[in-house]
Amino acid sequence: MRFTSEQRLDDGVLEREFTLGEIPGILWTPGSASTPAPLILLGHPGGLHKMYPRLVARARHSAADGFATATIELPGSGDRPRSAAAEQARADLRRALEAGEPVDEEIVDRLVLPLVEKAVPEWQAALDALLSLPEIGGPVGYSGGVIAIGIRLAVVEPRISAAVLFAGSFVPRTMFEEARQVTIPLHVLLQWDDEGNDRQAALELFDAFGSKEKTLHANMGGHTGVPQFAGDAAAQFFTRHLS
Amino acid sequence: MRFTSEQRLDDGVLEREFTLGEIPGILWTPGSASTPAPLILLGHPGGLHKMYPRLVARARHSAADGFATATIELPGSGDRPRSAAAEQARADLRRALEAGEPVDEEIVDRLVLPLVEKAVPEWQAALDALLSLPEIGGPVGYSGGVIAIGIRLAVVEPRISAAVLFAGSFVPRTMFEEARQVTIPLHVLLQWDDEGNDRQAALELFDAFGSKEKTLHANMGGHTGVPQFAGDAAAQFFTRHLS
Repeated sequence: MRFTSEQRLDDGVLEREFTLGEIPGILWTPGSASTPAPLILLGHPGGLHKMYPRLVARARHSAADGFATATIELPGSGDRPRSAAAEQARADLRRALEAGEPVDEEIVDRLVLPLVEKAVPEWQAALDALLSLPEIGGPVGYSGGVIAIGIRLAVVEPRISAAVLFAGSFVPRTMFEEARQVTIPLHVLLQWDDEGNDRQAALELFDAFGSKEKTLHANMGGHTGVPQFAGDAAAQFFTRHLS
Repeated sequence: MRFTSEQRLDDGVLEREFTLGEIPGILWTPGSASTPAPLILLGHPGGLHKMYPRLVARARHSAADGFATATIELPGSGDRPRSAAAEQARADLRRALEAGEPVDEEIVDRLVLPLVEKAVPEWQAALDALLSLPEIGGPVGYSGGVIAIGIRLAVVEPRISAAVLFAGSFVPRTMFEEARQVTIPLHVLLQWDDEGNDRQAALELFDAFGSKEKTLHANMGGHTGVPQFAGDAAAQFFTRHLS
């Protein structure tokens, strides 16, 4: 991991861009921290530049609660090389959504499964590097989408001890079986009127999770309309489980 | 309204039993309050003696947040005269549940509709009396079940400005239309594995509510297993809307 830039935000949060091999990422640490901070990995749908305003807002909120946060670019997004197969799957998905057709499971599989396969080891490598920094301790949480990445990480990565999952993206049916293997505490956010998401599938996925402590928070509004109080509740979940 | 007993609880909360005509009730007010306290009406399934431990716990929590709370006995419950028709409907419901049969809508109608018709004016009369006390101000919230009573109150009683509804009881289908007329902020609690409740119907009811701000919090466990953190989140909802 190599830091490539560093700036202090107005609330004292230290923002550092880094690269991990070819993968760009950002690390935010609280302005004042006497002990190593717990870490929250910030998931997103890809495209760090486009997502930056929302990511930094989540990072500032977490820093105020004493958490470090970090994110990396997804394979095939932002400045990273495109995959022809993923671009094709994304175009097919967009076409189905614009036509108002039900989305074929085969399209979801083509789009999400290779992404999960490639992204999850990258997040694990980022975790190795981040946890080697003296200012970062444990425990570790995962927050956000792509929910399929969050599910796989929750199953294969024992260092992640709690997750806030955004039920706002498509999930291959084969991952419902994986969801049953998740046992860490979960806090699932569902936007009730999310135009690009299947509410019934999201409820079935919530039902499938194996965790003894799992909470679903459903709120009104579309994909990006998560209300402030819902963000606060997710932050409290992490405070309960990572502090 | 006539106060019949008064005691100071160990956390300073003042608990007063009262009667409103023939209806028994309990009022809890915070130990220290310089201004008139906002009021939360505590709904319950009937039987004040049986429900007392859970009611007083909710009252203490609310008092710590600066709220007065009050509840009254439901028609046909506790020390109030039984209704033969309601007893019959309750027996029919129990029989269906014990036999593992789907509950006939006709039974739900017979059980819940007369209860709503009778209880709601009583809660409104209690509200008149409570709001005339100098130590109680507004705004007013409703918290709990029977959810059908909460729905009707939210529609007909303009003094109620926010509600926490427990999706843990049966709702006549005709009340779904009433749910569409609800516009106050709602916080709906759903116990995902509630043995005596129909999860799908609860989700449909949540969908039906007309409120622009409505949140569903689903948690694991049965009817009485609402986790501590879910109670805290409901309390925060009232702090946002009634303070």
